[in-house]
Amino acid sequence: MRIDIWSDLSCPWCYVGKARFAKAVERFAHGEEVEVRHRSFELDPGRGTEVVEPVVAMLTGKYGMSERQAREGEERLKELAAAEGLEYRVEGRDHGGTFDIHRVLHLAADRGLAERAWQAFYVANFAEEASLFSRDRIVAVAVGAGLDRGEVVGVLDDPVAYRDAVRADEAEAASLGATGVPFFVIDGRYGVSGAQPSEVFVQALEKAWDEREKGFPVLGGADGEGACGMDGRGAPSGR
Amino acid sequence: MRIDIWSDLSCPWCYVGKARFAKAVERFAHGEEVEVRHRSFELDPGRGTEVVEPVVAMLTGKYGMSERQAREGEERLKELAAAEGLEYRVEGRDHGGTFDIHRVLHLAADRGLAERAWQAFYVANFAEEASLFSRDRIVAVAVGAGLDRGEVVGVLDDPVAYRDAVRADEAEAASLGATGVPFFVIDGRYGVSGAQPSEVFVQALEKAWDEREKGFPVLGGADGEGACGMDGRGAPSGR
Repeated sequence: MRIDIWSDLSCPWCYVGKARFAKAVERFAHGEEVEVRHRSFELDPGRGTEVVEPVVAMLTGKYGMSERQAREGEERLKELAAAEGLEYRVEGRDHGGTFDIHRVLHLAADRGLAERAWQAFYVANFAEEASLFSRDRIVAVAVGAGLDRGEVVGVLDDPVAYRDAVRADEAEAASLGATGVPFFVIDGRYGVSGAQPSEVFVQALEKAWDEREKGFPVLGGADGEGACGMDGRGAPSGR
Repeated sequence: MRIDIWSDLSCPWCYVGKARFAKAVERFAHGEEVEVRHRSFELDPGRGTEVVEPVVAMLTGKYGMSERQAREGEERLKELAAAEGLEYRVEGRDHGGTFDIHRVLHLAADRGLAERAWQAFYVANFAEEASLFSRDRIVAVAVGAGLDRGEVVGVLDDPVAYRDAVRADEAEAASLGATGVPFFVIDGRYGVSGAQPSEVFVQALEKAWDEREKGFPVLGGADGEGACGMDGRGAPSGR
């Protein structure tokens, strides 16, 4: 069963939601059948990677919060993250553009390292002291997740590498009506918007599984003209 | 829109069905959105690659046809193949096990060469004079489709390479109730069994597209708690 998850590295709800969803998969009876595909979504698509400002300044500026509101919101996210076993630094985090990181994450997906790389970038952004938003740091985090340094540098040096893949993910999110993240699509049947409690994800997984078990209509039969059968039931008539 | 196609290289209806489906995609208004995934299905899973017999002998033996029935069936398939612009040799073709070829086809999929490799193996089996069922020939066809010779030999030398991928494809086909091939699953919504006329595939594609356009229910909203919004609509409440 395929789950598409649109997220941004700069979104604390995506960081929390990823952990809540992972717990749901553990609790879901068919968790081993779940195949996750991480999809790109930039919350701040016009911003370059190294155009950086402190998170609190971004919240008071872009979103018009008071500094107190911004800090209280961050403290609350820290508590919610802690409830999922995640570290979350309230002070000193930076906000920057994530386009280059999404391009590197598409490279990671091609190398079978998407899961590790997404988690590594989240941890680097939300839990570690160094700012994520520099080229050296992006390379270091990607290499730490198992990617080849030369390949990562190659992607960062080539502004069109995986550009269309990021844009295609974003176009698909828009076509599905997603205006925020995290945004989950379960087996192409159900959408879940936001970092819902694990229980909600479990229910959505179960509902999608039941739908899948019902099967789908099949046109034509294996025993007639036009098919090769496995054990002679189909082949003599078919051939 | 994703289409899964289960087939076997030794199945003439799969060879014909692939061409009919390709024509349907050309005629389908959203053909450029179609993403095909070729899946493995062995019609004769107990047979080793180099355990070979002439096709007519296989049909008279395994399926109990008279030699005349077998030849007439093959002549008819030649006509149907010709109608799709495909060459088809009635005389001198071999029947053999396809497990190793399926393993190489999974390698091809990992290298982005699945479409080319499937077509190359079909042509090698149905249109060309040399038997497909020898190790040297499998390597030659795979290399001709763009694969790296060392990688192909590596897969053939390692009996477990892509074994589980082939078995997983077959288990999924069984779980969907497929007892013959070709077997198409369109967007996880509709099955089509057998090499149906292109028109039938077009209708199935259109029906699946309409279903997709209807969208799906989304739980939760991007503007509430738990999501980061793209332009301030979601983030202040969400954060």
